Amino acid sequence: MRPSGREVDQIRPVIITRHFTIHAEGSVLVRFGDTKIICTASVEEGVPRFLKGKGQGWITAEYGMLPRATHTRNSREAVNGKQGGRTLEIQRLIARSLRAAVNLDKLGNFTITVDCDVIQADGGTRTASISGASVALADALNKLVVEGKLAMNPMKGHVAAVSVGILNGTPICDLEYVEDSAAETDMNVVMLENGRMVEVQGTAEGKPFTIEELNVMLSMAMKGIEDIIFIQKASLVNG
Amino acid sequence: MRPSGREVDQIRPVIITRHFTIHAEGSVLVRFGDTKIICTASVEEGVPRFLKGKGQGWITAEYGMLPRATHTRNSREAVNGKQGGRTLEIQRLIARSLRAAVNLDKLGNFTITVDCDVIQADGGTRTASISGASVALADALNKLVVEGKLAMNPMKGHVAAVSVGILNGTPICDLEYVEDSAAETDMNVVMLENGRMVEVQGTAEGKPFTIEELNVMLSMAMKGIEDIIFIQKASLVNG
Amino acid sequence: MRPSGREVDQIRPVIITRHFTIHAEGSVLVRFGDTKIICTASVEEGVPRFLKGKGQGWITAEYGMLPRATHTRNSREAVNGKQGGRTLEIQRLIARSLRAAVNLDKLGNFTITVDCDVIQADGGTRTASISGASVALADALNKLVVEGKLAMNPMKGHVAAVSVGILNGTPICDLEYVEDSAAETDMNVVMLENGRMVEVQGTAEGKPFTIEELNVMLSMAMKGIEDIIFIQKASLVNG
Amino acid sequence: MRPSGREVDQIRPVIITRHFTIHAEGSVLVRFGDTKIICTASVEEGVPRFLKGKGQGWITAEYGMLPRATHTRNSREAVNGKQGGRTLEIQRLIARSLRAAVNLDKLGNFTITVDCDVIQADGGTRTASISGASVALADALNKLVVEGKLAMNPMKGHVAAVSVGILNGTPICDLEYVEDSAAETDMNVVMLENGRMVEVQGTAEGKPFTIEELNVMLSMAMKGIEDIIFIQKASLVNG
Amino acid sequence: MRPSGREVDQIRPVIITRHFTIHAEGSVLVRFGDTKIICTASVEEGVPRFLKGKGQGWITAEYGMLPRATHTRNSREAVNGKQGGRTLEIQRLIARSLRAAVNLDKLGNFTITVDCDVIQADGGTRTASISGASVALADALNKLVVEGKLAMNPMKGHVAAVSVGILNGTPICDLEYVEDSAAETDMNVVMLENGRMVEVQGTAEGKPFTIEELNVMLSMAMKGIEDIIFIQKASLVNG
Amino acid sequence: MRPSGREVDQIRPVIITRHFTIHAEGSVLVRFGDTKIICTASVEEGVPRFLKGKGQGWITAEYGMLPRATHTRNSREAVNGKQGGRTLEIQRLIARSLRAAVNLDKLGNFTITVDCDVIQADGGTRTASISGASVALADALNKLVVEGKLAMNPMKGHVAAVSVGILNGTPICDLEYVEDSAAETDMNVVMLENGRMVEVQGTAEGKPFTIEELNVMLSMAMKGIEDIIFIQKASLVNG
Repeated sequence: MRPSGREVDQIRPVIITRHFTIHAEGSVLVRFGDTKIICTASVEEGVPRFLKGKGQGWITAEYGMLPRATHTRNSREAVNGKQGGRTLEIQRLIARSLRAAVNLDKLGNFTITVDCDVIQADGGTRTASISGASVALADALNKLVVEGKLAMNPMKGHVAAVSVGILNGTPICDLEYVEDSAAETDMNVVMLENGRMVEVQGTAEGKPFTIEELNVMLSMAMKGIEDIIFIQKASLVNG
Repeated sequence: MRPSGREVDQIRPVIITRHFTIHAEGSVLVRFGDTKIICTASVEEGVPRFLKGKGQGWITAEYGMLPRATHTRNSREAVNGKQGGRTLEIQRLIARSLRAAVNLDKLGNFTITVDCDVIQADGGTRTASISGASVALADALNKLVVEGKLAMNPMKGHVAAVSVGILNGTPICDLEYVEDSAAETDMNVVMLENGRMVEVQGTAEGKPFTIEELNVMLSMAMKGIEDIIFIQKASLVNG
Repeated sequence: MRPSGREVDQIRPVIITRHFTIHAEGSVLVRFGDTKIICTASVEEGVPRFLKGKGQGWITAEYGMLPRATHTRNSREAVNGKQGGRTLEIQRLIARSLRAAVNLDKLGNFTITVDCDVIQADGGTRTASISGASVALADALNKLVVEGKLAMNPMKGHVAAVSVGILNGTPICDLEYVEDSAAETDMNVVMLENGRMVEVQGTAEGKPFTIEELNVMLSMAMKGIEDIIFIQKASLVNG
Repeated sequence: MRPSGREVDQIRPVIITRHFTIHAEGSVLVRFGDTKIICTASVEEGVPRFLKGKGQGWITAEYGMLPRATHTRNSREAVNGKQGGRTLEIQRLIARSLRAAVNLDKLGNFTITVDCDVIQADGGTRTASISGASVALADALNKLVVEGKLAMNPMKGHVAAVSVGILNGTPICDLEYVEDSAAETDMNVVMLENGRMVEVQGTAEGKPFTIEELNVMLSMAMKGIEDIIFIQKASLVNG
Repeated sequence: MRPSGREVDQIRPVIITRHFTIHAEGSVLVRFGDTKIICTASVEEGVPRFLKGKGQGWITAEYGMLPRATHTRNSREAVNGKQGGRTLEIQRLIARSLRAAVNLDKLGNFTITVDCDVIQADGGTRTASISGASVALADALNKLVVEGKLAMNPMKGHVAAVSVGILNGTPICDLEYVEDSAAETDMNVVMLENGRMVEVQGTAEGKPFTIEELNVMLSMAMKGIEDIIFIQKASLVNG
Repeated sequence: MRPSGREVDQIRPVIITRHFTIHAEGSVLVRFGDTKIICTASVEEGVPRFLKGKGQGWITAEYGMLPRATHTRNSREAVNGKQGGRTLEIQRLIARSLRAAVNLDKLGNFTITVDCDVIQADGGTRTASISGASVALADALNKLVVEGKLAMNPMKGHVAAVSVGILNGTPICDLEYVEDSAAETDMNVVMLENGRMVEVQGTAEGKPFTIEELNVMLSMAMKGIEDIIFIQKASLVNG
């Protein structure tokens, strides 16, 4: 029995609130249960130096967490003087995932920076970040089309992510914090709308896993991601 | 005529939402018009080294801004590797203001860290931070009383702040961004519930000011702060 | 009775020694009693990026303190790897104050960097820095005129500063260290030669202050600054 | 046809040279083809603060690359003033992988720091690091046993890793640099001697992958890792 | 003919002003011609961790330069976020030189930090620093004796330093800036009062030198240092 | 009697292995007894900003040490966030020494960066670095000639270095670690093939030295360097 009463393969209630802040070209508050993240997509003209003259745009991401987004207060990275290893790992994952969903050759001379800032954490912040950022990115790209700066939206489809894991020998989907901290294995899966996978990152926290367990987790993740993509699409119905 | 249609001495709509996030001992979303800030108060046992054995508690503050809280994206301080001068100045001001409202000798062996994170900026973020943080602090201190860790709440009263300025020769209260960026003079005033002042920081951005102008601005600030303290009190009516 | 035997509204002996070092375009040793600061003004061609093509010059400032300028040794900021919050706050104040005294539109394509380095501290280092820097700046600007690089000196007049405070309930002017560390309230005032104020920064260290106390402090500061400006002018009589 | 003439599922020649340097408790030069890495295991008494009093030891890892280990020179991280995101990601992976192979409860009050320094890079540096570090760790742990500091070696078995990927639609094992830089998908698999998986990290660089492709890659990786574990074991035959 | 009209083996006028600032236990302004440096010696109880329980004291040094001590302004190291290589090299040299002049076993449980801050530079700042610091150190040690904290002064004798070099083929002593920047070879020599050498650092800037040239430079340096030690002694005649 | 059984003026076995790694234009493993260093020379087009348009090339150097190159593990400088003072001092010395051996006016528009990374330390790492780097540099320069990018090799001759010192009153050459850590005086000498000296850095660690001792050490160093240059030349006989 899960603390939330969910089925083993059931994701938490996912709520995507668009236009959450007023300045960004795309701005979303994404909630996976008690995990809440502000995802903004900011458009700037120009591309990084290593892409100059290559005729493509770029998408990058940064991730942060408010110091008291968690049970006990974490020190502020700006005070520490650097982003931690976990932060860098997550923001690299977010950026790769978003780039996989966009035809960069059709993005013109634009760089889009996606900021995912966790204001309340209850497990799965990286997968919620990707799922929310996909919608913020879609809004920012649509704005470029509406403003006539791009001929068409270069997004190939939605991208979403979910965590799966094995807890007390049972595979479960979309772990909340108390589940995550006790799980033997934790896996994050990022998938495109077309069912192809972008990232699979499985880590045995306690007990290494078999290939059979891996396959059960993958199936569970694919189902969960399909549910999230449905919610992403629904959120975009109104302009 | 002000962009918002406000009177010259009228503050923006101030909304204080308590229990905004679930982990912090005090957690407030404060809105001054379009300025929105999450203020959390985190309680930790122990005091900084310079206070060890002195029989008093401590209150400190940190300030941050999400990269896209503003019209154009600012670089993330954690990426820059340090907090900027403006940030340090603001968080020192917030901390001093809150300490002035609390009897530190009655705070026991606790340190309270207040985090003010701007999620949307439209001028007056430092004064809104102080005004929201005062309520988050009150909640955290009340929690210590309820839990029996403190005999009574050591807060002497509310502390609130507002900005005043001179725009086109006219003194105005609680400047929003378009006013602030065009003002000749900008002054931040922090005041206690008893009418005594904690901080007065007037800066001539463009044209230096006379002592008469200073006094008009001070009167305007005192009136504005009284209005904010009324709203702080109202927000605390329900537990 | 003050430790120095001064009247409550009497500033310390202020001595301004010009041409203190040989390389800088303007170089002053300023003494406010036992506070001693080297203020140099360095002229460089060009302006910061954000001013390119705007047809104006720029003035910036940096502040430092030798490790043993104080009673006990402070760690060196270059060793710490960053300037502290207090340092950043002071150098931002110095720069704003100096810019208020200069018509930047008439400064041409020059940036002037003022360095204020405290070699001995006894309270009031920020106000002494501003008062000394004003003379160093005047010298550097005159040099540009003499060399034919500017048609006329763009300085609107002197700028000077003094601290005032309340100690044991009594307002006093130009606090030395033992007074400053015991004062209930500390206020720094920066004023132009024409009597207009550039900065007013009042902070209740211990006991918040009333508006009446604020006004007494302001009057005292204005008188003190007039005395300092007299000394600035006298120091410039000889070339 | 692969550049090296290898079969698609064939790993490169793996050579493990023990006792490569004289000071470390475990010291290995590992070669995967032209990739060469020095792996040292250093034993120190004591554990990190978060483990004090928990009755277990700790294993951590650091990763570096000589500036000219690669085709063009990379800047030195010590000069940059920080480790890059890729470095942090890799060293976290190495440490997790090694910890999964050791019974930390039987490690006593010791911390073992494994350093993996790439002196020549030709793809697969993270998987070669793990495979070499496993042997260096075994040597260091054996030394503790020989010296009577541990009753028995707490290692559960070898841990090894290999990369697999899809290049031009064909799955291949143990990619060298020219293959890696052109691959559509890159996956790193870390496995224990008992066939259980510790880490699976698949990333679609170019084209997202299907679950069928994932399974082919996994099978290939399992076979490759078995070959590497055979070589690890052989290397330990002589003391 | 030297710019100053000096003989080839003649040092610049050296003036040592003791008690230059009021807070430090030892405080000296040392002038070698137009090079001016404030040297302070600060006494603190306790020793660095690596000396705990070894029954000896410690002497360390830090070096800095005001940004406009030089012809053109140098950036401030505290702003750069680190001390440069030249600074670190110089302060290590100063510290080693001073330690060589003191019997650390007789220094008790004290650490003395010597700060050498260049306020005006005209060549030879490291040698002037050592020569001035020796006197500041003597004053600080005498103070410990006078206060009864040490039974006797642990200084073995003065230590002084001078630069020598080869300019246009001619060896010269105590180079000023214009000489130094044109010299083929630059050598710094640090010597004790008893004629023994502590440091010899010769560097061929342009043209490598012969052993004969080295010996001429050494003789010249020894004579110059004797002159400086005479001035150090004279400066200490009055208390 | 020396631990290795060497004569007092005898250097350790010096072995220079060229083409040690495959990517760098010059790559050498240099061994002085148990001291082992990888020296690579990397060629890049262009020169640093301060040399633009001056018609000369540039040579720079960086130095590092693997964390476990030493008896006990040193923390990694990339983790510390900066290079230490000793590292900066050594890499500045290496760079100056190499530049003294090359006619920079004939180096064209190239910058050569030499990396010296110590993989095993047993004393004399800076002198071994210089001696090995000279050969790596020669190889890189020859490659530029062979590729037709330079008309002729701009190297004036070999440059080599050795340490000498006084141990228990006896001068000895090429100190290994146990000797170095006990020596009263340590001196590093860098010399060109033509017998002229580039650097002489003598430091009294314990007991200051006389000029007679200095001269004995210099003679010993010159002989040792001649032996090293013989080995450098021999190593270059085959292409």
